Amino acid sequence: MKKLLIASTALVASAGFAAADVTLGGSANMGVKYSSAGLPSGNNTALHYEIDFDIKGSGTTDGGLTFGASVDIDQQITAASGNETAAQGITDPEVFISSEFGTLTVGSVDPATDGFGIADVGFDGVGVDDDAESIKNANTTANVHYTVTFDAFTLAAAMHTVSNDYSAMLKYDFGDFDAAIGYARDNSTGDSAATLDVNSTFGDISVGGFYTDGTGTLANGYGVDFTYTMGATKIIVAYGDTDAAGDDADYGIGAEYNLGGGAVLAGGVGSVDSNTVADFGINLTF
Amino acid sequence: MKKLLIASTALVASAGFAAADVTLGGSANMGVKYSSAGLPSGNNTALHYEIDFDIKGSGTTDGGLTFGASVDIDQQITAASGNETAAQGITDPEVFISSEFGTLTVGSVDPATDGFGIADVGFDGVGVDDDAESIKNANTTANVHYTVTFDAFTLAAAMHTVSNDYSAMLKYDFGDFDAAIGYARDNSTGDSAATLDVNSTFGDISVGGFYTDGTGTLANGYGVDFTYTMGATKIIVAYGDTDAAGDDADYGIGAEYNLGGGAVLAGGVGSVDSNTVADFGINLTF
Amino acid sequence: MKKLLIASTALVASAGFAAADVTLGGSANMGVKYSSAGLPSGNNTALHYEIDFDIKGSGTTDGGLTFGASVDIDQQITAASGNETAAQGITDPEVFISSEFGTLTVGSVDPATDGFGIADVGFDGVGVDDDAESIKNANTTANVHYTVTFDAFTLAAAMHTVSNDYSAMLKYDFGDFDAAIGYARDNSTGDSAATLDVNSTFGDISVGGFYTDGTGTLANGYGVDFTYTMGATKIIVAYGDTDAAGDDADYGIGAEYNLGGGAVLAGGVGSVDSNTVADFGINLTF
Repeated sequence: MKKLLIASTALVASAGFAAADVTLGGSANMGVKYSSAGLPSGNNTALHYEIDFDIKGSGTTDGGLTFGASVDIDQQITAASGNETAAQGITDPEVFISSEFGTLTVGSVDPATDGFGIADVGFDGVGVDDDAESIKNANTTANVHYTVTFDAFTLAAAMHTVSNDYSAMLKYDFGDFDAAIGYARDNSTGDSAATLDVNSTFGDISVGGFYTDGTGTLANGYGVDFTYTMGATKIIVAYGDTDAAGDDADYGIGAEYNLGGGAVLAGGVGSVDSNTVADFGINLTF
Repeated sequence: MKKLLIASTALVASAGFAAADVTLGGSANMGVKYSSAGLPSGNNTALHYEIDFDIKGSGTTDGGLTFGASVDIDQQITAASGNETAAQGITDPEVFISSEFGTLTVGSVDPATDGFGIADVGFDGVGVDDDAESIKNANTTANVHYTVTFDAFTLAAAMHTVSNDYSAMLKYDFGDFDAAIGYARDNSTGDSAATLDVNSTFGDISVGGFYTDGTGTLANGYGVDFTYTMGATKIIVAYGDTDAAGDDADYGIGAEYNLGGGAVLAGGVGSVDSNTVADFGINLTF
Repeated sequence: MKKLLIASTALVASAGFAAADVTLGGSANMGVKYSSAGLPSGNNTALHYEIDFDIKGSGTTDGGLTFGASVDIDQQITAASGNETAAQGITDPEVFISSEFGTLTVGSVDPATDGFGIADVGFDGVGVDDDAESIKNANTTANVHYTVTFDAFTLAAAMHTVSNDYSAMLKYDFGDFDAAIGYARDNSTGDSAATLDVNSTFGDISVGGFYTDGTGTLANGYGVDFTYTMGATKIIVAYGDTDAAGDDADYGIGAEYNLGGGAVLAGGVGSVDSNTVADFGINLTF
């Protein structure tokens, strides 16, 4: 395509005429992880740290439509033998437009059912919730996501335009109590998963639970969590399991202490697939 | 090299003494592309989205010399089978210094003739201009670019310090009319291309055209475009072709509607190498 | 882990409740390098440019603990045959917490002895210091770094939690004079290095020197530098060598001129392993 006039370099590629804006946010953590089954370092205990910065552009049209795009710059590292093993890169590209009629996002989006599940425990998460939650999305992928809220209802739907996987969710918020149902279907296998997810808060106590009914090759998964908040301190207990043959129940207890300013001390201990797992560290939000 | 005192970590690598600044800008798009020849997804229609953030540092010396550097963080994705196929990464590194005597840029720069050509149509571009414009740069590469403006003249020259490709351009701006000539030569093949490019605006109408005379293995390329602007709406018509044996003429018509705030709705339809191509989507500038 | 409510997309992953902040900084350079031994381009002279942006998040807890994380976005390029050869990517991830009791950093940190050595000469560095300084860290790696300052003393210690390499340093700052001792040990080879490093400034003149005593397969390394500052101009002379068999002494002289605003013109010429090396260019800080 023809470029304006001389188009000497890309240094001024971003036009100044827009009222839109680009901002930076991020989070990080550092701490120690333990597993009786061993970690990639070959030891039972390892240093872990993770950094996730996100770049976001956003704006508003003259008619009030909001829009934006974002990518993440990630580094997730668990110390391994000799040197660090890093999962890193530019990830999670997303572009969205939003109005009172809902928000449409394309890109590396989650299935509509991805928000279901239970809390994990620990600063980085020991994985108490992983098995139980592994069924809810029926292994679906998605590159289009739509969500809209009307009164107390929130509806979300997601699909992949090529694989034709799809997922949907409807939630009703009663105030101190919310309930949601969701459905996901993997088009290549025909496997599907239907989930009921409930959460309730009364005073300092929150409880939540979900049940996923899998079809085809998928088992059923379920879990509950319980959180007690006392000032800056939180205690979290979580339990999850599936009815897959040979899968052991997973459970754990964790604590968090909010240091203020975006820093939270956290730790947890649990049993995952009958291995003892634990972690302790600090979570930072920028 | 010795680091200052303890040099414990790189966290404070960027010194605070400088008056220079680092800023973020970017652009994104999302929409649907169609080709009667099929797309990488295996379908004729595919979701497309693209994100390009750019990080730029710049400053001014005590003597008034401006300087800077930039990189792009890109994601360009056309939905393909199963998962997304992404071209991504940190691209387009450039460092420049600039004064009244011109701007010198080193890095991943374009040939001096890269600004020539015609408009494409569509939100992402259906490619009406690609064949016709494929000759103007004579396949040259460049890592040094210089441009200077004096009165109505703009001169640009680019070269690659190792391959010894070079290109140059001279433009004269008459106000509502500009004309430019350019020349590019690929040192390895000896192929060269000479281009005449003209653009004119009268009232709401802009027209442009170019002719490239290729030597050696290069054909000749040419094209014209026509843009009519009516308030927030633009209509673009473009035609391009080469005299290479068996190459069909490419043409298309597109429309754009400026939503304000950095968002533009756009779409186009055309014929490229005798395939019907079309796209429709939204372009966002941050 | 369960996400809050709908968790539609990651666009709002960075919570707004934190007082923490994310900032951008960076540096770049451009210039020409020469080596009588030839450069990767196949020529003796090559264009060189480098860009390093860093993203940093930081904050402070209610109790006054500071914390943060950073990554670098780098491009380092020396023009080679045909196209650019680039070392690029997202590098140097670090997470830290800091208080009056010191600063603990995890990630891609340097050994505690990495700050020792002599100045290099030139805008990008011709490498006068490389051989002499190659011994000080005893090839150790590190993923944890701790440093604390009490009165005129600064202590630093670093280790790798898996390879069990370690290093430590103690420095005393007398004002116009400082002296430091350090020790590094590679756990896999058993090689170690002990270094004495001194620096002094009197008026416009700074001098520095170091001596590293290597054990095992490591030679001894040593060097001195001398810097004379006269207004915006600096003259640097550096000499380094090791007692490894067949290793020639390295020496050079360089000059810098501060243009203000974050830009410094610099160049140097020297002899490295009996090859003549030189560079000239501009360093930019944003």
